[in-house]
Amino acid sequence: MKKIKLDICYVGTAYCGWQVQPNAPSIQAMIQNAAEKLFGAPCAVTGCSRTDSGVHARSFICALTLTDGANNIPAHKIPIAMNIHLPDDIAVKTAEEVHAEFHPRYDATGKEYIYLISDSPLRDPFMHGRCARSACRLDHERMAEAAKAFVGTHDFAAFMAAGSKITDSVRQIYDCRAERSADMITITVSGNGFLYNMVRIIAGTLCEVGRGKLDYNDITAIIDSKDRSLAGNTMPAEGLYLNRVFYQRKESEADAQSPRS
Amino acid sequence: MKKIKLDICYVGTAYCGWQVQPNAPSIQAMIQNAAEKLFGAPCAVTGCSRTDSGVHARSFICALTLTDGANNIPAHKIPIAMNIHLPDDIAVKTAEEVHAEFHPRYDATGKEYIYLISDSPLRDPFMHGRCARSACRLDHERMAEAAKAFVGTHDFAAFMAAGSKITDSVRQIYDCRAERSADMITITVSGNGFLYNMVRIIAGTLCEVGRGKLDYNDITAIIDSKDRSLAGNTMPAEGLYLNRVFYQRKESEADAQSPRS
Repeated sequence: MKKIKLDICYVGTAYCGWQVQPNAPSIQAMIQNAAEKLFGAPCAVTGCSRTDSGVHARSFICALTLTDGANNIPAHKIPIAMNIHLPDDIAVKTAEEVHAEFHPRYDATGKEYIYLISDSPLRDPFMHGRCARSACRLDHERMAEAAKAFVGTHDFAAFMAAGSKITDSVRQIYDCRAERSADMITITVSGNGFLYNMVRIIAGTLCEVGRGKLDYNDITAIIDSKDRSLAGNTMPAEGLYLNRVFYQRKESEADAQSPRS
Repeated sequence: MKKIKLDICYVGTAYCGWQVQPNAPSIQAMIQNAAEKLFGAPCAVTGCSRTDSGVHARSFICALTLTDGANNIPAHKIPIAMNIHLPDDIAVKTAEEVHAEFHPRYDATGKEYIYLISDSPLRDPFMHGRCARSACRLDHERMAEAAKAFVGTHDFAAFMAAGSKITDSVRQIYDCRAERSADMITITVSGNGFLYNMVRIIAGTLCEVGRGKLDYNDITAIIDSKDRSLAGNTMPAEGLYLNRVFYQRKESEADAQSPRS
């Protein structure tokens, strides 16, 4: 048995998200299908998270578990070979052999998301489906200031989709920034874990800040309240990108690597 | 009668090009349809050039000729209002009222195109349909050096699609550059006019330079030869963008402008 860690990227527009669902195209199903074609054997695929329908990934980590009958392909040749079997909106960036116990989700020590919002009054056809839009101009300096209020270890119950069944809503946010480049605001959030819709609600709340409705102190108060109704709207999926997944490097993983990957 | 100059942009992937064709969606038809819905009257649309199927535009100039029965909409309100009637892959950026004799094609003093080529061995899903790809690494410094050979007034018969019926193939190239950013090479070419497929053949020839098959002196010799068979391949449409159209500003045009546009 062999385990391969893949770093993939995808435009999520056409998919129901990462996870296999009946009667809907998923990223997981596309990866599994491509892997089985390439390796000529059944293959289990595990992902680092469940991205929602329409969410994109610049870097998403998944693992292939190959049975003994699978074709033996050197890790560094896997990306190009697998991309031949993948649709144009999904690609493998890197592949490396890892120890059998590696789990893309449980071994992750953190993740970084970005959320894009255009506040131009005009649509950009090249960004259609790839960013959210704000009908009014956003004050990015206010947003940058307020973003800092998310950093630290807090109970983020106010920033979790209503109806979530998670009982422990404490998460550590490593960094939260808002930056402008021309008409595009980029919100970057990294942390040890995220509640359901958490980044999209943080983005919606920072938009309220950008519109002058809330400020840094309000963010602190909303976190303390644990009340979802006080935070901003859940922003649409199309502005959200999984940007990076962090792993603590283990000696055993380094040992298992193929020399070229 | 009123004439409106529009600056539009579009992702050309889904279209047969600018010009109306039977049984194929064109940018011109989309603009005409949106204008007629907005102005409530028949409307003639003229473009600055015929872009080919799959070619994109960051800036394409066209003109609407409105009859006297057309709704009176201030020029600065036209972009947002017209975008409501346009598909997601086309948008109006600016609109201004111009004198009745303005012609987007005959009045243009020049155009700038860019051509994008990725030489990463890996596909980028976010750039699918929006750049060409080179299977081998390109030497961008060689390409930058050789690009200078195109600058000046030359007979570009060697860089014109075979079978073109144009008799005068002399054009002035103002600037020609090749620059790399990570795995993406951007070729920028501006000039007073372009022959059919000229930029795509220039890009194909510069790729031969990037692969080490040709150099600056060869480009000069190919131009002098006027022999299409000596130049490189015609690169695919998906890497080509009309980037800017130049006009000499006329006093009469400034007079006719609405105050806010």
